[in-house]
Amino acid sequence: MAVYTEVTDEALRTFLAAYPLGELVAFRGIAEGVENSNYALKTGSGDFVLTLYEKRVDPVELPWFLGLMEHLAAQGLRCPQPVKARDGVALRELAGRPAAICTFLPGVWPRRVRPAHAAPLGEALGRLHAASAGFHAVRPNGLGPSAWGPLLDRCRAGGDAVQPGLIAELDGKLAAILAAWPATGALPVGQIHADLFPDNVFFLDGPDGRPVVSGLIDFYFACTDLLAYDIAVCLNAWAFEPDGAYNVTRAHALLAAYQRVRPLTAAEAAALPVLCRGAAMRFLLTRLYDWMATPPGALVTRKDPLEYLAKLRFFAAAEGSAALGL
Amino acid sequence: MAVYTEVTDEALRTFLAAYPLGELVAFRGIAEGVENSNYALKTGSGDFVLTLYEKRVDPVELPWFLGLMEHLAAQGLRCPQPVKARDGVALRELAGRPAAICTFLPGVWPRRVRPAHAAPLGEALGRLHAASAGFHAVRPNGLGPSAWGPLLDRCRAGGDAVQPGLIAELDGKLAAILAAWPATGALPVGQIHADLFPDNVFFLDGPDGRPVVSGLIDFYFACTDLLAYDIAVCLNAWAFEPDGAYNVTRAHALLAAYQRVRPLTAAEAAALPVLCRGAAMRFLLTRLYDWMATPPGALVTRKDPLEYLAKLRFFAAAEGSAALGL
Repeated sequence: MAVYTEVTDEALRTFLAAYPLGELVAFRGIAEGVENSNYALKTGSGDFVLTLYEKRVDPVELPWFLGLMEHLAAQGLRCPQPVKARDGVALRELAGRPAAICTFLPGVWPRRVRPAHAAPLGEALGRLHAASAGFHAVRPNGLGPSAWGPLLDRCRAGGDAVQPGLIAELDGKLAAILAAWPATGALPVGQIHADLFPDNVFFLDGPDGRPVVSGLIDFYFACTDLLAYDIAVCLNAWAFEPDGAYNVTRAHALLAAYQRVRPLTAAEAAALPVLCRGAAMRFLLTRLYDWMATPPGALVTRKDPLEYLAKLRFFAAAEGSAALGL
Repeated sequence: MAVYTEVTDEALRTFLAAYPLGELVAFRGIAEGVENSNYALKTGSGDFVLTLYEKRVDPVELPWFLGLMEHLAAQGLRCPQPVKARDGVALRELAGRPAAICTFLPGVWPRRVRPAHAAPLGEALGRLHAASAGFHAVRPNGLGPSAWGPLLDRCRAGGDAVQPGLIAELDGKLAAILAAWPATGALPVGQIHADLFPDNVFFLDGPDGRPVVSGLIDFYFACTDLLAYDIAVCLNAWAFEPDGAYNVTRAHALLAAYQRVRPLTAAEAAALPVLCRGAAMRFLLTRLYDWMATPPGALVTRKDPLEYLAKLRFFAAAEGSAALGL
């Protein structure tokens, strides 16, 4: 669920008075997203999304996120565009939290991924990377390779209770990933989404009935990192069947569509397997940490870290980029 | 949070194909309501709310609820109006659940109740009772006086752990309430909302800046019972300050506005204190039961039953209807 902070109607009215958006028509909490509080906001000017930034987002980083979204939208990418108040400022405060209003994006995120989603997703990711080229401010990836060792250490005490032998296996696999990780400068770097899971990609039906990407949302893990690592995240998030099988056809469609926008360098193509292992490790570790920190009786969905152990093992055993669909 | 059942986009498309609502534009879970799964649905025809009915609602009773809402909307009351598919049927199935699409209502529910809300609320409640007069199907109140004894029995074992002496106090107060409860036929009966808390009442600013009720929602506790009991529920839900003080001015405004639409009979006026005690008992008991059934570590909001013990004690000590604002 995604409403952690309640907003009184007086506070909302005062907040909205700073914007040229017309009268308030509706205001409903949205049950999606896990980091922030999101409200569907309707005014005389149309539909918007109001986000209150919660604890996990560092307020100091918000101008970077909003700046990136503004830049991408100006390049024609369909993503939430921060709406400026009359004084030109988009990042404000509401109910004691940093808050911003963004444009509403049409579309529906796929609860079940179909093969037809792969090509439009790959193309959208390619366009995202192309559009971000002119945005030069750097935000290091706080959940990149240098974070994985410390994260694994924080899971060390209780990890084997989740699955016997887990920590030793992760120690071995992490050492192999870090040893094979591309050297600085070897692969193109740019702004990446870093969390492009199905719930962050909206689709609509195109004229031929095939899905078309109508928007990308939730840029609050975005950072400056290897562009091809973003592809690896997407292969983790989109290329596996519900039964755990890697769908190489779907992966190929995603990769081919991406490369029609931005062809991979030879070094990127060669690095794809280790990048996929790294991405699997990243989501395994954050899920494992959250799993151990969440009481079993809690009525919040705990995402199963072992799903990513299976993906990590698959990528560790895969022989070369061709096996991944490249 | 209020999305218990996920809907795949294929299932949603098939479901929507039965309606003359145009193409799907957006579909987002709403983080409000606690009984059912609610989605904000936008199509080429406008905004709607799609509800999937979860376990706590008996599917056999859904035609009654939808029929009441349809009747009330036809009488001009602003409430969700069930939308019929091309075959004339509003109650359908989606993702293995009974499901219905209703019209979208503008407005914002008050996170903090202000004195200015009381009169429009009272008037809206009066209009609801007036509009429901032509709807004759009976639905007994499953959480009425005859349910309170059994509910208290189910809390008997663990109730004193919530507050020492609680069960003995409730035994005594319940016996007094039931002994003083109006005899059958003594008070006017009709269709009541039975759960008209602030999150079920939407307001918008009127032309003079004062709040105007723009809609009443969530009729899934509605039933056939004493009309004045619905007023008693509203006094419990709207007349207390956050510090627990009964705001008699606000209660008076609510009651006066109600009576401008439907004057109370002398018997109703005399019965108001015991009806208020009964309503406090009803919400105390269901909250107490839910409190005991919810593990303390669970990340779901448990509503404090003792808030209603304080209200029950206030109403038990109040001397006559005048002390309640009548």
